[in-house]
Amino acid sequence: MFVNRMPRHEILSEEALATIDGGWRRLVSEIGIQFDHPEALELFRRAGQTVEDDIVKLDPEFVLEQVAKAPSEFRMRARNPANDLHVGGDHMVFVPTQGPPFVRAGATRSEGTLADLERFAQLAQVFPELDSPGSRVCEPNDLDLDSRHLYQQLSVTTISDKVFGGSANSREVARDCVAMAGILFGGREAIDATPVMFAVVNVNSPLRYDGRMLDALLEYTAAGQVVLLTPFLLMGAMAPVTIPAALVQQAAEALAGVALVQLVRPGAPVILGSFLSNIDMQSGSPGFGGPESAIGLLASGQIARRLGLPWRSGGGGLTTSQTVDVQAGYEAFNTLHAAFLAGANWVHQSAGWLEGGLVACYEKFIADVELLQILRAQFTPLEVDEASLAFDAHDEVRHGGHFLGAAHTMERFRDCFYRPMLASTENFERWNRLGARDGAARAAELWPKKLEEWQRPPMDDAVRAELEEYVERRRVELGDPLPTVAHAVG
Amino acid sequence: MFVNRMPRHEILSEEALATIDGGWRRLVSEIGIQFDHPEALELFRRAGQTVEDDIVKLDPEFVLEQVAKAPSEFRMRARNPANDLHVGGDHMVFVPTQGPPFVRAGATRSEGTLADLERFAQLAQVFPELDSPGSRVCEPNDLDLDSRHLYQQLSVTTISDKVFGGSANSREVARDCVAMAGILFGGREAIDATPVMFAVVNVNSPLRYDGRMLDALLEYTAAGQVVLLTPFLLMGAMAPVTIPAALVQQAAEALAGVALVQLVRPGAPVILGSFLSNIDMQSGSPGFGGPESAIGLLASGQIARRLGLPWRSGGGGLTTSQTVDVQAGYEAFNTLHAAFLAGANWVHQSAGWLEGGLVACYEKFIADVELLQILRAQFTPLEVDEASLAFDAHDEVRHGGHFLGAAHTMERFRDCFYRPMLASTENFERWNRLGARDGAARAAELWPKKLEEWQRPPMDDAVRAELEEYVERRRVELGDPLPTVAHAVG
Repeated sequence: MFVNRMPRHEILSEEALATIDGGWRRLVSEIGIQFDHPEALELFRRAGQTVEDDIVKLDPEFVLEQVAKAPSEFRMRARNPANDLHVGGDHMVFVPTQGPPFVRAGATRSEGTLADLERFAQLAQVFPELDSPGSRVCEPNDLDLDSRHLYQQLSVTTISDKVFGGSANSREVARDCVAMAGILFGGREAIDATPVMFAVVNVNSPLRYDGRMLDALLEYTAAGQVVLLTPFLLMGAMAPVTIPAALVQQAAEALAGVALVQLVRPGAPVILGSFLSNIDMQSGSPGFGGPESAIGLLASGQIARRLGLPWRSGGGGLTTSQTVDVQAGYEAFNTLHAAFLAGANWVHQSAGWLEGGLVACYEKFIADVELLQILRAQFTPLEVDEASLAFDAHDEVRHGGHFLGAAHTMERFRDCFYRPMLASTENFERWNRLGARDGAARAAELWPKKLEEWQRPPMDDAVRAELEEYVERRRVELGDPLPTVAHAVG
Repeated sequence: MFVNRMPRHEILSEEALATIDGGWRRLVSEIGIQFDHPEALELFRRAGQTVEDDIVKLDPEFVLEQVAKAPSEFRMRARNPANDLHVGGDHMVFVPTQGPPFVRAGATRSEGTLADLERFAQLAQVFPELDSPGSRVCEPNDLDLDSRHLYQQLSVTTISDKVFGGSANSREVARDCVAMAGILFGGREAIDATPVMFAVVNVNSPLRYDGRMLDALLEYTAAGQVVLLTPFLLMGAMAPVTIPAALVQQAAEALAGVALVQLVRPGAPVILGSFLSNIDMQSGSPGFGGPESAIGLLASGQIARRLGLPWRSGGGGLTTSQTVDVQAGYEAFNTLHAAFLAGANWVHQSAGWLEGGLVACYEKFIADVELLQILRAQFTPLEVDEASLAFDAHDEVRHGGHFLGAAHTMERFRDCFYRPMLASTENFERWNRLGARDGAARAAELWPKKLEEWQRPPMDDAVRAELEEYVERRRVELGDPLPTVAHAVG
């Protein structure tokens, strides 16, 4: 796992933090949060909060008491212990893009399929820069809507031995995902002790949690699995058009969710989410990777640290670009870099995101992994000691000389610098001779090669059989005719 | 001018700074700096420094005494007072790429010409994000080598009314550039009082200043014009392969130059330069935009602030990419962003750089200006006050609503968010219908349109005539047959 030991980049003053703190307190207590769920409302009512119809007006002190029950750091178990995760503190978890309906490979944009989902899961398994395949890098549109979560879970948990995600569409879906995790880890008790999966619960912003998401929240929380509470704020649409207002709203929404999680199961692992960008006020389309995203990330990280909770950055690698072009490069870098500067503990959408999240792209996946490699190197503290000053090398090379052959260089030349996977440093003549391929074209050659490196991680035959039986039984119960979908890896 | 009021991102500990401080002291005093120039050696000898052949071994305390004479901030006059510059403090100066031999427009890569130089100067004049056209965004290869500086100066000073650069190839070239600046501003005394131009003096690293560069340094300094002293360090070639060693060498080289400048003219304006990257140890090609560049920039800024000198970052917008692709996007963003985080006072190469600096590219120029626009917005402090929290908007919109039509939004929608010049936020269908153009293709349409916005800034006819007479007289003296070069703007 990557541990970010570099200083955080903090942009809010104490005064600004105090103003924002006052803001969310006023929002939760005066406007309140809507919970479209009787069980949630009852929990809040019993805890002494004011419930008016489906609106809960929260005492800010009560909220902070609940927040204090949540662990500031926790462990997640993976099928392969080498891939266990530590969430919180200086640790960073990287999860690829989750859920786009479309897939792009080269110039072809098509609906995502299970085969795509599986290929992306293989890539997430192969690259050590990624800590999880999530639940679905793209939506498997070739599967029946009601039962697709079963096949998703089967794919990600057998293709990868890293921590995985579950779906949060409904209580029934969440139950299936938790049940399959139980099979994988030898029973419900095993996963109850230490979480093995996560689910993203988006807020229906502004200030509203809908019933199906709450169903999933309650189910995952009761099972002790990790919930990522994510206000999804595009300023101008689901939030006001000023960043401070969005930060206040984000805190109000996420903290209300944390309070609910802690009412269900005190001490349950939960991650404070953020996803803050803006719409283009001319077109109404969302914008990603611009200054608002970056400022929002830096401020969100600072606020989360105050609250002592692990924090999910909205994403790394975000862009509105339709292709893997210069725009995709700088927008993705801006969001991913901001996540590092802001000290994010969990970076969602960190590989493959294109077209405002409508597309999961193979070439972009490669480009984003390169960004992760660059930033991991860039956020590794510089060791400065006498030996690192290389005085002897200067004594050897002297004025106007050349360090290529120096003893100091010969000892270190293999690993002294970051070596890019995707970027070209070839001279023009050689680059031209090799076909004058731009970054996207080179990425298109890289991802099929990386797929070849994939090996199915070992799994007990009995466990595999039990998983498959579960999927088959539930498929029938959910009324799904036998699927005839194509798998990438059989 | 842009004023960077955001916090600096500092990555070196006090202990690391002290180690680096000890490092440059040892280097200048024990190995010394080579000055290939009798006048420079004599100045150091008279100041009590140890001169052995052409090596000067400097007392670090003497160096710091000299450094203390240099202004930490100063003003530069432009032909148009609205374009005057403040150098140092929180102010940032942005200069486009300087000097590549080749030019790229779309898929065409060709030798740079005076017409290209002039088009780039027009773009630098048109975009408020750039503070200067420099002396030459590309090399005008269609001009005679000995006299081209005359035409360069004539072009940049008549096409633009911003602060400009001069060439530093030799004493004679520097004299011509200074003389032409004198004509522009009404005499040598006028430019002596407040500098109007700058010259980049690269160190012939490691630890050596060559004779021609020193000639230019002495000439510009005597005339009170700004010298940017830039160690040009590609680790593995001109510096050892560890970043701390390169930082130490950079400080030693630049500070020795500052000491010389202050011996020539105490109080003369001078900028501490840095240009620190690495070579690819496999190919020997330089690499730009990776982690080493960024770490080097952050550390260099921190060291420069300690020394109290205005500081030039190696560059914004650097990349080794051969085209305006995803690699160019993330590498350029990484270096430009690092310059902002590091608090650079002067950002050279901030628009147009491609292919490791061998190419000045029109489309990249546009992309880089967009990066400057993003980063200027991103490095503008967030105003957090009660009004910015938009409580009334929440009161109006309530739970699950939409802010598009809120009064708070209607009051602010025109300028609440950054609006990109180049980035597309169009939906896929519209983007496809409009020709499915990527960022480079859109940039190719933007730069000719921006050129149309250019207007020749007013200049006194007598001044223009005197400049042209100077150029004509010196052309003949330098033995240049009448040039038949094409101008972009006549």
